[in-house]
Amino acid sequence: MLPFARVSIIGLGLIGSSLARAIRAKMPTVRITGTDADPGVRERVRELGLLDDVADSPGAAVVDADLVVLAVPLGAFAAVGAEIAPELAAGAVVSDVGSAKQIVVDSLGPLLPETIHLIPAHPVAGTERSGPDAGFPTLFEGRWCIITPPPGADETALARLSEFWSRLGSKVDLMEPRHHDLVLAVTSHIPHLIAYSIVGTAADLEGVTRGEVIKYSAGGFRDFTRIAASDPTMWRDVFLTNKDAVLEVLGRVSEDLAVLQRAIRWGEGDALFQRFASSRDIRRAIIDAGQDTADPDFGRQH
Amino acid sequence: MLPFARVSIIGLGLIGSSLARAIRAKMPTVRITGTDADPGVRERVRELGLLDDVADSPGAAVVDADLVVLAVPLGAFAAVGAEIAPELAAGAVVSDVGSAKQIVVDSLGPLLPETIHLIPAHPVAGTERSGPDAGFPTLFEGRWCIITPPPGADETALARLSEFWSRLGSKVDLMEPRHHDLVLAVTSHIPHLIAYSIVGTAADLEGVTRGEVIKYSAGGFRDFTRIAASDPTMWRDVFLTNKDAVLEVLGRVSEDLAVLQRAIRWGEGDALFQRFASSRDIRRAIIDAGQDTADPDFGRQH
Ligand SMILES: NC(=O)c1ccc[n+]([C@@H]2O[C@H](COP(=O)([O-])OP(=O)(O)OC[C@H]3O[C@@H](n4cnc5c(N)ncnc54)[C@H](OP(=O)(O)O)[C@@H]3O)[C@@H](O)[C@H]2O)c1
Ligand SMILES: NC(=O)c1ccc[n+]([C@@H]2O[C@H](COP(=O)([O-])OP(=O)(O)OC[C@H]3O[C@@H](n4cnc5c(N)ncnc54)[C@H](OP(=O)(O)O)[C@@H]3O)[C@@H](O)[C@H]2O)c1
Repeated sequence: MLPFARVSIIGLGLIGSSLARAIRAKMPTVRITGTDADPGVRERVRELGLLDDVADSPGAAVVDADLVVLAVPLGAFAAVGAEIAPELAAGAVVSDVGSAKQIVVDSLGPLLPETIHLIPAHPVAGTERSGPDAGFPTLFEGRWCIITPPPGADETALARLSEFWSRLGSKVDLMEPRHHDLVLAVTSHIPHLIAYSIVGTAADLEGVTRGEVIKYSAGGFRDFTRIAASDPTMWRDVFLTNKDAVLEVLGRVSEDLAVLQRAIRWGEGDALFQRFASSRDIRRAIIDAGQDTADPDFGRQH
Repeated sequence: MLPFARVSIIGLGLIGSSLARAIRAKMPTVRITGTDADPGVRERVRELGLLDDVADSPGAAVVDADLVVLAVPLGAFAAVGAEIAPELAAGAVVSDVGSAKQIVVDSLGPLLPETIHLIPAHPVAGTERSGPDAGFPTLFEGRWCIITPPPGADETALARLSEFWSRLGSKVDLMEPRHHDLVLAVTSHIPHLIAYSIVGTAADLEGVTRGEVIKYSAGGFRDFTRIAASDPTMWRDVFLTNKDAVLEVLGRVSEDLAVLQRAIRWGEGDALFQRFASSRDIRRAIIDAGQDTADPDFGRQH
């Protein structure tokens, strides 16, 4: 039996449209509705035929749904929550794909009626693109989806949501929302922040032109620009909503960088070598875990 | 006419073996000799048949060569320079592929006889792998090779070396050694240092296990681990030999990161948005310049 029969997706960008495509591919009998704040996006999703019905408002999109998934930037969660709350069917599961999770419990929880089950989730998958044309049905395959049920969450609702993501090809994990936010600060939010920062530094550095930065970017810099091309609205919201964990990890990042800086200043080759040599193990473990390709340079063409 | 007829390559790892392969592919009549400090590498290069003759010492490898290319880590340049100096043929061009350039002028220049033309160069191309099996003939194609002639360098020697790299498919640029070192600090050395640093931070952070870091690395972290899997000896030498430029840029990196940190602390969404939004232009320019793929996520499989 399918975990859900009528799924509504609010926000039809990269993640929302990928979700629609994945449901179509893996659970073709599910009826998919949804909406997006942007009329152009709604129009495009209609053209692409990704949904059974594209509504013009969140309220209209969720009527009847047994699963509602918020796939908008985190800053829009409270507004969407307020709009859908009065329209939700009793017993519906409300979930999301947001990149921070405590904020979802805090901002959405109080808005929803008692008959609704809030089970936040985060598929750890994405690209630097955004919008409905950037989505694709295999985005979640082989990737982890972290579900962060609030204390006392309904077991059946949780089991159904786990089954839903498993059917989409994801591996499912459960976590405390706050722990999720710390782990993702390390594995995703800080890498993005650093990448944005370095790209800004390179663009503004006196003595080196932007043309030079672009020409010689193949030495490593271009890898940072990929991440730093990600959607600025989405990432602004991530840093505003996962502030505590991000600032905590950032403190450690600055300390560790200062240690390397000192080692370079004092010419401590052994310390540098040891630090650098230990990184290879993690790379190997990530490849062994199927979380990246082993092809040199990501298999990029030369 | 070929720019050189007898090329000797000292150091037969990723770059040296790629150079041998590229010469074979593009200038098949060139006689290629060379050597490596590691007997296992010499043996492997013989098996692969990459060279016409694999010598057992740098001195023996360079006799007769009209171009000698050092492709060893920067820390080995002085030792190799001292070994080859007495064996070089009068009029030979000595060049290299080292990732920093002022150090090459300073360490190699004084060792070479007056009849030898030192023309340092740096092909801005590579992967995270090392050793002769990691090399491939198209590594330099479409990439820039930066040549950094010392003041008063012989024009003919410079023209021949430019022609040599052009024939291998590279685009050639000329630069002052010190300026090269600043530009590459930004586009290559600092990205590597940051990547090594972050990978270390993530591995040692209290509250988050290594297993969690590995599992959820697809959110951005895995990109950093690729760069941080690069050869530790090579990178130790880069930071020891390009210390001034690296420390200068690192100071700016820390300042810029502090600005973002403050914006997050004070919840300044507009400042974050503006900073993030400006990064997309550089990404686009890098893709337009043919220095990276436009495929989302580097075209990695999902
Ligand atoms: N991108 C990733 O790599 C990734 C990975 C995992 C999770 N996530 C999470 O997924 C969510 C969506 O990200 P995305 O990458 O799919 O972004 P996206 O491609 O920019 O799509 C978001 C869509 O939501 C719409 N929207 C904004 N406010 C809305 C509202 N109040 N009501 C209805 N629609 C609204 C946006 O319209 P406008 O264009 O008008 O703003 C846009 O079309 C975020 O919470 C993010 O944290 C992203
Ligand atoms: N990797 C890149 O992405 C890249 C890009 C552009 C330029 N470069 C530059 O290219 C050079 C070589 O780097 P690589 O990536 O090719 O490194 P690699 O794959 O580690 O190869 C270097 C080889 O040089 C050998 N070697 C060390 N000392 C030697 C000596 N005194 N005499 C003869 N051989 C010696 C090493 O042997 P052992 O194994 O015994 O040490 C090793 O086989 C470096 O100067 C680097 O800065 C690298």
